[in-house]
Amino acid sequence: MEIVRHEMGPRFSEMTVARMGDANMIFLAGQVAENTSLGVEGQMREILKFIDRLLAHVGADKTNIVSARIYLASVGDYAVMNSVWDEWVPKGHTPARSTVGAKLIRPEYKIEIEVTAVANVVHHSHEHEHGDDEHCIAADSAETNAKK
Amino acid sequence: MEIVRHEMGPRFSEMTVARMGDANMIFLAGQVAENTSLGVEGQMREILKFIDRLLAHVGADKTNIVSARIYLASVGDYAVMNSVWDEWVPKGHTPARSTVGAKLIRPEYKIEIEVTAVANVVHHSHEHEHGDDEHCIAADSAETNAKK
Amino acid sequence: MEIVRHEMGPRFSEMTVARMGDANMIFLAGQVAENTSLGVEGQMREILKFIDRLLAHVGADKTNIVSARIYLASVGDYAVMNSVWDEWVPKGHTPARSTVGAKLIRPEYKIEIEVTAVANVVHHSHEHEHGDDEHCIAADSAETNAKK
Repeated sequence: MEIVRHEMGPRFSEMTVARMGDANMIFLAGQVAENTSLGVEGQMREILKFIDRLLAHVGADKTNIVSARIYLASVGDYAVMNSVWDEWVPKGHTPARSTVGAKLIRPEYKIEIEVTAVANVVHHSHEHEHGDDEHCIAADSAETNAKK
Repeated sequence: MEIVRHEMGPRFSEMTVARMGDANMIFLAGQVAENTSLGVEGQMREILKFIDRLLAHVGADKTNIVSARIYLASVGDYAVMNSVWDEWVPKGHTPARSTVGAKLIRPEYKIEIEVTAVANVVHHSHEHEHGDDEHCIAADSAETNAKK
Repeated sequence: MEIVRHEMGPRFSEMTVARMGDANMIFLAGQVAENTSLGVEGQMREILKFIDRLLAHVGADKTNIVSARIYLASVGDYAVMNSVWDEWVPKGHTPARSTVGAKLIRPEYKIEIEVTAVANVVHHSHEHEHGDDEHCIAADSAETNAKK
């Protein structure tokens, strides 16, 4: 078992990845829009792009998502949210999903999405691992901890 | 690693199952009542029946549930919800649980429940696998994707 | 695969642990303060202590947390909640996190936190296992069930 954290800040990581055997169990922080001047549709598109981008860090994609939880600031936005989701979600690989209304942390946020995914462990070449993968900020495991 | 999706629609699947080693990690979509004319007690019974039915698709049952999250449209329904839960939950195998109030997508919904379960992989006979298991709608894995 | 339940009651367990290969996948029930006369800061400290205590039952600690979900009765408490979180969360090991507003079950509750963690299986000595570990209330697995 090994946990790798991506886009790690002092408060939370955008993604944590627990390697269990040959599988990576992937947990995303609640994704919200950065451009909060956007409406529901625009915020949704931004959030789904963030999810795609984070999963790509470990060689996974949206077909690996097993579970998604969507929080709506206003449940009246359900239909518009779904119109963007339906375009994006891969047919034949749809996740378990829940959608509930919740008060979000900033009043400008209209949507927040949490995602859990499971993917095969991708074995990077040595060059890549120490080359252009700037997103892997920290790994902690029995092994690496023992070295510190 | 392999992901199997059950009762899969174009928007979401009612259940996704990630096989990791000898274990199935099982994610259920948020379950809500179909007969929304029912009161809290009736909706709760219906939801728990849906959970039992979904878990049975992979040879699991309620003793495999590790985590449950209950959303109540009105937190005042906590006691009634619990009276049905307490009858149903298997003594000696109770899951980690949270209950919070949330606005649900349809005003008639009084309860929504998300469940995560872990179960041993059940090895079906060949006959069964290709016979009466109409619920297994899609499997995606490195292997099957490579064949397509 | 084996599921062990800790601080198990007839309604729910405070923690469930699914052993999958060499890893324990750990699910905590939503943690709330016991001393509900405390303010946000005090309730937060109590909750984080409960999380530390539960994880310690399986030889894990806060560096094993992969995902945390924080419910706030009032989103206006976000800054105060974070001031306690920031002191507590281990730098270099921050989890994926979401924070949303939700109505909690008792009006005195100001915060509720759910946590998922992944840890290496700790092999206890025989003496310990049957000695002072009063918290392991129940294990259920194909093996132990077969013996009953």
